[in-house]
Amino acid sequence: MKKISVLGSTGSIGTQTLDVVAMHPDAFEVDGLAAGSNVGLLLEQIKRFKPRRVSVATPQLADEIRSSLPAGIELFSGNEGLVEVAAGGDANTVVTAVVGSIGLQSTMAAIEAGKHIGLANKETLVTAGHLVTELAARKGVSLLPIDSEHSAIFQCLNGENREDVAGITLTASGGSFRDYSREQLKNVTVEEALRHPNWAMGSKITIDSATMVNKGLEVIEAHWLFGLSYDQIHVILHPESIIHSYVEFRDSSIIAQLGSPDMRVPIQYALTYPERWNSPAQRLSLAAVGSLTFREMDFERFPALRLAIESGRAGGTATTAFNAANEIAVSRFLRSEISFLRIEEIIAEILDRHINESSPNLEQIQHCDRTVRALSAKI
Amino acid sequence: MKKISVLGSTGSIGTQTLDVVAMHPDAFEVDGLAAGSNVGLLLEQIKRFKPRRVSVATPQLADEIRSSLPAGIELFSGNEGLVEVAAGGDANTVVTAVVGSIGLQSTMAAIEAGKHIGLANKETLVTAGHLVTELAARKGVSLLPIDSEHSAIFQCLNGENREDVAGITLTASGGSFRDYSREQLKNVTVEEALRHPNWAMGSKITIDSATMVNKGLEVIEAHWLFGLSYDQIHVILHPESIIHSYVEFRDSSIIAQLGSPDMRVPIQYALTYPERWNSPAQRLSLAAVGSLTFREMDFERFPALRLAIESGRAGGTATTAFNAANEIAVSRFLRSEISFLRIEEIIAEILDRHINESSPNLEQIQHCDRTVRALSAKI
Repeated sequence: MKKISVLGSTGSIGTQTLDVVAMHPDAFEVDGLAAGSNVGLLLEQIKRFKPRRVSVATPQLADEIRSSLPAGIELFSGNEGLVEVAAGGDANTVVTAVVGSIGLQSTMAAIEAGKHIGLANKETLVTAGHLVTELAARKGVSLLPIDSEHSAIFQCLNGENREDVAGITLTASGGSFRDYSREQLKNVTVEEALRHPNWAMGSKITIDSATMVNKGLEVIEAHWLFGLSYDQIHVILHPESIIHSYVEFRDSSIIAQLGSPDMRVPIQYALTYPERWNSPAQRLSLAAVGSLTFREMDFERFPALRLAIESGRAGGTATTAFNAANEIAVSRFLRSEISFLRIEEIIAEILDRHINESSPNLEQIQHCDRTVRALSAKI
Repeated sequence: MKKISVLGSTGSIGTQTLDVVAMHPDAFEVDGLAAGSNVGLLLEQIKRFKPRRVSVATPQLADEIRSSLPAGIELFSGNEGLVEVAAGGDANTVVTAVVGSIGLQSTMAAIEAGKHIGLANKETLVTAGHLVTELAARKGVSLLPIDSEHSAIFQCLNGENREDVAGITLTASGGSFRDYSREQLKNVTVEEALRHPNWAMGSKITIDSATMVNKGLEVIEAHWLFGLSYDQIHVILHPESIIHSYVEFRDSSIIAQLGSPDMRVPIQYALTYPERWNSPAQRLSLAAVGSLTFREMDFERFPALRLAIESGRAGGTATTAFNAANEIAVSRFLRSEISFLRIEEIIAEILDRHINESSPNLEQIQHCDRTVRALSAKI
């Protein structure tokens, strides 16, 4: 029996993780669930999956649900609650599906406690990749990618020697506005931006897909997960999102992973690796799809991707700044405070002003994160 | 230093195998070369690669070249010569690149002598798959596929558990006449049939691609190489030949192998497995390719594929009969004795008359092979 804790259990990846758990009731047990403020759904999940420890965003929310909980459940709240669910229980694997750099501290705590990580929170590696990967290596725990692109690369590397890898290519659907010109982007609405062509996801990642920031975060995540230089990481436009990503080896052979867009597949793989279990995901028929198309990435059309890669190459706190600026800009866009194109302007302005700190420790990263957030909220 | 012998050294796969050897002169040494009647090219190869033993098709050809050979080379001829080169020398790996079921005896001899097989002669497994795979398992030698489709499947299985395989799909370009109707096929010429859209190959396999017999042979070969049932082996039309084949796992994840059409890549992989070495093959750019298309296989349009799979399911000597009928029919077509569509008619007539022998031994297989050849030459 594999014990799982889920950070961000009421979000898109969180609920799909619990779908996977529910499909294999004899194999998985839920140890902990951490949610934000969707306590209605959390209470349903508690009833169904019987975790031993749960956490919500604030003490007030905790007070709200306390009387509804079955006896024997430990209840926590806030960032400490997230850390308790991540590191305190008996879970073998912690799925980190919270959104944003808030996932960093709890992920570090889980690794410190020797738990394998099902990594859906890419901001963790973007913000503090050198600390997280170093700690994971020291503790001997696995960072199992849940993002479809990184799961694809991870699968393509099965049984291969890392030194034979020439490079990897992450595929990008192009997001909600892939066929819009820069001019057309000027007046797009939040509602339009939230309509992703291929994947049903949370709102932050859907906006990140439209700006191509998401692919930028993925490039940085891939750099840390697979130990590749930025010269070895490529991005290609692939509107159908059927090839999830691929690896090119030095003999020119390419290994690719394909599938229908269903996040339950990479989630399950992270939980069952190195085994593969049956899945109810729809079988892919390439004949039914008919055609797969590919275009060179356009860095003029998607400058945020260029900025992400530049901050990745700069290293230090540059990626922390990139990520924090984006998180605040996206939340401002979602509140209709700023326009869509202002997101990438804010990121560019922050990176322009950023004084980079190389090899930062956790405190320096958190300081940078706070400072950039405050500034990004104002500009 | 890895010692290689090449059976069929002057053919398409043979010459490309020697290209691969020449690219890595510090790693490979040629122990033996067996050719047919192209003694001019064979003499050049002998000069360049300095094998210890060579063989040609007939004693007459041997006499013809004897005086041109450097001292110390052992010279053989005929089927015994093929066996001598395959099994007699010091080679670690024997590349079996002769065309047709003539490759069977020498391949068996090489396996018996404990040599790993770089398998480019698919007729060997089609004709006597149960004997060849059983002997290879007993002798602990590897059957390393060189066909691009089987190399693709072999690569996609790296690091995976065989019990997790749901099925495999072999891609088919459709050959020279993929857009012709049955009606249009009635009057096609040998010259037209020899124009393959994607691959430059020998004439027999090019005709086999046009009839889809080649894909049928590949299905049977895959059955034996990967221990899969015929229900697990699928064929899809993929005109661009960029995805060389793919594996679907039980979690619905698909792993595919892609590349430019260059046989030096699978040949080299068979020689360097489990390592991958640098290759001068052209890098694949999916953005440059632009689009990959797929269609369901049409068994009405390509009845020879249906016949191949039926003979595979029947087992016994049925596949021997299928293959022998095809070899003779193709050679008759290449000599303009019969029409293109007559090839599949001859196969169908032979299979109609065939009395199947289950679990045949080598003698029974060879008897079936001879009988079917004689009959196919007359009908």
